[in-house]
Amino acid sequence: MLPRGLKYDDFPEESDEQWMLLALKEARTASDANEVPVGAVIVCENHLIASSHNQREELQDPTAHAEILAITQAAAEIGFWRLENTILYVTLEPCIMCAGAVLQARIPRVVFGASDPKGGAVHSMYQILTDSRLNHQCHVTGGILAEPCGVLLSEFFRQQRKLGKK
Amino acid sequence: MLPRGLKYDDFPEESDEQWMLLALKEARTASDANEVPVGAVIVCENHLIASSHNQREELQDPTAHAEILAITQAAAEIGFWRLENTILYVTLEPCIMCAGAVLQARIPRVVFGASDPKGGAVHSMYQILTDSRLNHQCHVTGGILAEPCGVLLSEFFRQQRKLGKK
Repeated sequence: MLPRGLKYDDFPEESDEQWMLLALKEARTASDANEVPVGAVIVCENHLIASSHNQREELQDPTAHAEILAITQAAAEIGFWRLENTILYVTLEPCIMCAGAVLQARIPRVVFGASDPKGGAVHSMYQILTDSRLNHQCHVTGGILAEPCGVLLSEFFRQQRKLGKK
Repeated sequence: MLPRGLKYDDFPEESDEQWMLLALKEARTASDANEVPVGAVIVCENHLIASSHNQREELQDPTAHAEILAITQAAAEIGFWRLENTILYVTLEPCIMCAGAVLQARIPRVVFGASDPKGGAVHSMYQILTDSRLNHQCHVTGGILAEPCGVLLSEFFRQQRKLGKK
């Protein structure tokens, strides 16, 4: 877990990359634990309030994606289920479940790294976060540090195939 | 929490309604706790393995829908994130987040009660569970005890409006 209250407001123009580097650090923690390497952090008014990584195998919980764990953490930190004034940074385009959780939490902005052509629900397979028929929409920025975020994933799956695991 | 291992296999043809009655019981528990009344149970080979209700307000967690809590419970019960040979019964058509969680958990069948025209992701707004582009599809049965499931919700919202809450 990264230190709470960490700030980057001295470098506003670079802050998306700075926060994504922290999400990437979480993703590496997942990789080291033999989990699909996805990491997420949540920032509120330029302060870190949650950070997590995919823990599906460790917890044997299919809902234990980085974003769900970070959202639950952030709500506990704030003491309220509405995550107003927050930004979610995540290394991979959220899946349907996690995009749905972003709507449930009313997160106003999502920044992601690599796209997920097979399961991404932000721009690849669905456009859940920008569907004007629903009761909440998000500002979305994709492709921040997309290369290192994606390389970490492809390297993980390459290793898994080598070991005959995936 | 309902007793684990409960069985209904003496009445297979009525079992969908029997299990939905338990989900409805969970939904009533939610209502009594001033939560939006949605309840869910998960059954594995005709044995109850999880039961839960919406606890968003109590836990102040935007992910604490009945289905997410029941899925996490069921995985803990089985000790594996894949909920093979299970059926999820839920009183309301799942939202995007919960439909996505059903896919993540590889649940083979979902039975729901009332439809949710504004946010349902099974047949109303999206058809997440039957999208052949994704890596998992579900058998879906809708409308089981739709009336009592729906009345419980409309009555809850009527009361909330009366109290000026929603």
